[in-house]
Amino acid sequence: MKFNYKMALAYDGTHYGGWQIQPNSPTIQQILQEKIALVLRSPVTVIGSGRTDAGVHATGQIAHFFHDKDIDLHRFFASINGLLPPDIRLKKVESAPTDFHAQHSAVAKTYHYYLRLNSVWDPFTRLYRLHVREKLDLSLLTEAAALFVGTHDFTSFTNEVHKGSAAHDPVRTLYRLDLVPIEEGLRLEFEGDGFLYKMVRNIVGTLLEIACGKRRIDEVPLIFEAKDRRRAGKAAAAHGLFLIDVKYPD
Amino acid sequence: MKFNYKMALAYDGTHYGGWQIQPNSPTIQQILQEKIALVLRSPVTVIGSGRTDAGVHATGQIAHFFHDKDIDLHRFFASINGLLPPDIRLKKVESAPTDFHAQHSAVAKTYHYYLRLNSVWDPFTRLYRLHVREKLDLSLLTEAAALFVGTHDFTSFTNEVHKGSAAHDPVRTLYRLDLVPIEEGLRLEFEGDGFLYKMVRNIVGTLLEIACGKRRIDEVPLIFEAKDRRRAGKAAAAHGLFLIDVKYPD
Repeated sequence: MKFNYKMALAYDGTHYGGWQIQPNSPTIQQILQEKIALVLRSPVTVIGSGRTDAGVHATGQIAHFFHDKDIDLHRFFASINGLLPPDIRLKKVESAPTDFHAQHSAVAKTYHYYLRLNSVWDPFTRLYRLHVREKLDLSLLTEAAALFVGTHDFTSFTNEVHKGSAAHDPVRTLYRLDLVPIEEGLRLEFEGDGFLYKMVRNIVGTLLEIACGKRRIDEVPLIFEAKDRRRAGKAAAAHGLFLIDVKYPD
Repeated sequence: MKFNYKMALAYDGTHYGGWQIQPNSPTIQQILQEKIALVLRSPVTVIGSGRTDAGVHATGQIAHFFHDKDIDLHRFFASINGLLPPDIRLKKVESAPTDFHAQHSAVAKTYHYYLRLNSVWDPFTRLYRLHVREKLDLSLLTEAAALFVGTHDFTSFTNEVHKGSAAHDPVRTLYRLDLVPIEEGLRLEFEGDGFLYKMVRNIVGTLLEIACGKRRIDEVPLIFEAKDRRRAGKAAAAHGLFLIDVKYPD
């Protein structure tokens, strides 16, 4: 496998069981592998920068695959997009160094979480924003969000099971968690060196409980200290979450 | 029927056969009538400001219905939205004067038509923007759009059959046709005193043919003069079109 190819992908996660191949529902990885195998006439394994859950969307997922022949990328791009369903799109494909790995080489990721803040449901954002009917205290939300920025042990905010293995380090650095007002809503922008399983959704769920008065802001340091998933809030729904960007060293 | 009720509605037209009741597919009017009849326990006829075609969306459709009893509107609003499917939403309901008629009382309407201008298809706007792969000459598009503003006989831009009846006047006034740049695309904003059947989509189709060099701009006055639908361009796809607002006298 001499050649390594890096792809940028967008997908509407509504109708998929997430990124990773699994037995009971179609996944993005599975469909990509099928279409690429058709075009290259040989099976491939597509490695993503990370899993996205069922219902989570992406505008900037990065993935790579190896192939033993030099590919005409212009033709490959058109062929793959001709075969993919309309809710998955290859945005870019390029040659990468042999040691490039979509997951292990990643140095930062950006996720956005979208909230609709309005008493009335909206037909057009229903699949892409969490609809929050409760009145949120936005200054409290801003204050609480700041408590997550920086380097922390995020054990309480992940559904991953660690089993105390040193190989799995639950410490991550969140570079920023910005609240950006949008029409009838809010976008929460997360940028960090890496994210544990369900970490963004668990943080959003906890922030929402604080901002609508169900939980006190001074619980946050205690939740971090407890290193216990059961102490944090419920995970916010998958459909508000977008994987926006993955960064690699130049 | 002493009481007249005015409703503002939003709907994602993707899965419907348009506004008006018809035998072969579910329509917005039909579903509204069913749900309102359930809540009021008596059949109603819902009159819209106008038909929207299959696949056309609305954020500001206006409709009205009569009822013989005084309705608790707060409860009605919650009940109807609890029964409607997630892609149709009642945004507002209020009492209206007995002589208010959603179609006949309307004095102006606003439609927006959305274009995606990018060589690559996008999973998230696929149902809400027409994807235009061809390079458009935007200054030519602007120049051509201006030719439609004002009072014209729009016979060449409607699929309505007039049969020369005086009752059906094909003269309409377009107050504005503005081109608003949006992310990776363009929004064409139409505001006029009224629109004939398929008029917006036929104008957009003609403008696109001009802007991508398939048709000369100096044909426009000749198309108007011909009063012949076959002289204008193809109708642009339904899914790019949104009914935004209907205006009534104060």
